[in-house]
Amino acid sequence: MTLKEMDQNYVLQTYARNYVNFVKGENSILYDEDGKDYVDFGSGIAVCSVGHGNPRLAKAICDQVSNITHISNLYLIEPQARLAKRLAELSGIDAVTFFANSGAEANEGAIKMARKYGEVEGEVKRYKIITLEHSFHGRTITALKATGQESMHNYFGPFPDGFVYAKNIADIYNHIDDHTVAVMIELVQGEGGVQPMQKQEVQALASELKKRDILLIVDEVQTGIYRTGELLASNLYEITPDIITLAKGLGGGVPIGAIMTTHKEILKTGEHGSTFGGNYLSTRAALEVLSILEEHKNSGELDHIMIMFEERLKEIADKYSNLFEKEVGVGFMRGLRVKEGRDAGEIINAAFDNRVIVLKAGRNTVRFLPVLTMTKEEMLLGFERFESALSSL
Amino acid sequence: MTLKEMDQNYVLQTYARNYVNFVKGENSILYDEDGKDYVDFGSGIAVCSVGHGNPRLAKAICDQVSNITHISNLYLIEPQARLAKRLAELSGIDAVTFFANSGAEANEGAIKMARKYGEVEGEVKRYKIITLEHSFHGRTITALKATGQESMHNYFGPFPDGFVYAKNIADIYNHIDDHTVAVMIELVQGEGGVQPMQKQEVQALASELKKRDILLIVDEVQTGIYRTGELLASNLYEITPDIITLAKGLGGGVPIGAIMTTHKEILKTGEHGSTFGGNYLSTRAALEVLSILEEHKNSGELDHIMIMFEERLKEIADKYSNLFEKEVGVGFMRGLRVKEGRDAGEIINAAFDNRVIVLKAGRNTVRFLPVLTMTKEEMLLGFERFESALSSL
Repeated sequence: MTLKEMDQNYVLQTYARNYVNFVKGENSILYDEDGKDYVDFGSGIAVCSVGHGNPRLAKAICDQVSNITHISNLYLIEPQARLAKRLAELSGIDAVTFFANSGAEANEGAIKMARKYGEVEGEVKRYKIITLEHSFHGRTITALKATGQESMHNYFGPFPDGFVYAKNIADIYNHIDDHTVAVMIELVQGEGGVQPMQKQEVQALASELKKRDILLIVDEVQTGIYRTGELLASNLYEITPDIITLAKGLGGGVPIGAIMTTHKEILKTGEHGSTFGGNYLSTRAALEVLSILEEHKNSGELDHIMIMFEERLKEIADKYSNLFEKEVGVGFMRGLRVKEGRDAGEIINAAFDNRVIVLKAGRNTVRFLPVLTMTKEEMLLGFERFESALSSL
Repeated sequence: MTLKEMDQNYVLQTYARNYVNFVKGENSILYDEDGKDYVDFGSGIAVCSVGHGNPRLAKAICDQVSNITHISNLYLIEPQARLAKRLAELSGIDAVTFFANSGAEANEGAIKMARKYGEVEGEVKRYKIITLEHSFHGRTITALKATGQESMHNYFGPFPDGFVYAKNIADIYNHIDDHTVAVMIELVQGEGGVQPMQKQEVQALASELKKRDILLIVDEVQTGIYRTGELLASNLYEITPDIITLAKGLGGGVPIGAIMTTHKEILKTGEHGSTFGGNYLSTRAALEVLSILEEHKNSGELDHIMIMFEERLKEIADKYSNLFEKEVGVGFMRGLRVKEGRDAGEIINAAFDNRVIVLKAGRNTVRFLPVLTMTKEEMLLGFERFESALSSL
């Protein structure tokens, strides 16, 4: 039986997979079983923040699993306490953190926090949460309902009530009523086409919500952990949300989710929990990821490579104006908006054939989510291959 | 700042923690920072199936994270395909598997599958799922609503409709109507007091549901992965459920969840997904866990130690009849039911003071979830300490 047949016979077929078999990784480079190398501009959909096979992260994980991997939240977990402290310090936000296992779980926890707040604070019970069209908040039933895409609201109902969708930031105000307890947004919509929100609009929203005692939840599952150049996109936007959710890049590939909140007593003992969440393995890995990335940021290298990357993308958008409308995004969350009549999928496939991995976002965006520790050589090799793919189209 | 203060200042306080600081583990033995050893009869709430610091598991994880930890489900993941195949083979159930990151996520996926089935199969749209009182299915909003405990249905509403609670297996039949699509049960209620269901009753239910085209979902988050002596409790009960959920013991401490289903096309491309789910790290770890436990089972050692453990527990229940009513459970999912008027918490604390870790289940059960690779020496040491704790009460 080939691996492809094994996958098709035994794995539930919900993914449209590419059947390349990657067997080794080194920072931005992946090798398939025939030894062919690929430049990875996707980093596992923004997960592999410190690259593939990062030796420092591997060593931290090896040390940890040789001692204790997991012991449950009935006991103190030292790296969990240290990680929570580090997140508060690096973000400059005076927050406490709850640890989960994924972005969907983090968003579920954020929604639970907001609903609890709406039940105990204020004169009337508030439960409505406003989210944005084209958002994506995860695959659990409630996270799907929070997602502002009609196509996600099929099959799995009854869904929970209490979610309202606004067209954009300005439209949020039109949907606030006496039962509104929270607004939940991504600062750069990832799945929605690499669409950054406008900074002043976001700041005005944050300030208006604070006045009305409505919580601001920022879903940083994709934007968090230096993806935009700062620890949090909230730092870049200079706002202090009530609740921030994290996942993808935090563990460098180890499953972890986190919910930071400035409301330190929003949930009490027994009101939320997770068996795996925040265990020795995932929090030790995340501590090492933060340590690697903090050094990378402080050395100036992260900003430097991000700027070079943006410049190259802009050049490409100009040079291949037959294919692209413009370059969009921020930091290492970038896209090339494909011209009407051209097909993003075709470009992504041609790139893959030239051994550079890029992703799709929304309907018509070629998405770039590079490894944050990408070297200049890796970047140049990737763009060289990407350009030769474009020339062939 | 002490670690306790760090935890209390930076981690959201939803756990009533014991502030011992464990720094090293060896199979069933944990060591705190002062070098004191504890016998772990709780295994991180049934997670550390192959013990703490298992060298084979540690080596598999080290090898994997030095190469590739994660690459996303856009590509083939070899250990994921192999793990799905292994689960089908070892269970003898002709199923496909979807991988998630926790038990809650696995149960969310199972509910989604059932609801999809109810939407597309049969003449009327069916969506109701019957669960049992005292069940526990997880901490996401929908999993909380599926949980048959009123105390779990506060604060976080609106919850999704469509869940109905039966008092016990016999009472399930009373709740079936034209809109019922599934029944979801644990074969041994873990959080509900280590309560095994009666085998013939379960088999009769499985057969009746099959006749009526109602899906049987078995939540094996705690009972799965040899916890009851067989790969699945469903194997022990000799039933073939439509959907089985797994998590805790599968990754040996690495966060992972899985949903096995015999309905191989129940969800189509794009209808479910997970960023981390089934990645190289978690599935490689789970493959090694299954390999270790399969050998342990086939050697006869697993059955042998389980039988000895049960005998010792029965002796203790008899000897300390001032404290305990009886011994309950199956395999390595065991409990001592505490006499009316005595306090399970007091017994658990006394045991901890004597350096043996036992857990609580339900209102009045002292729970034992040992490491599946526990040695006879570890067991004897643990019971010696447990008995001296009991003598002091």
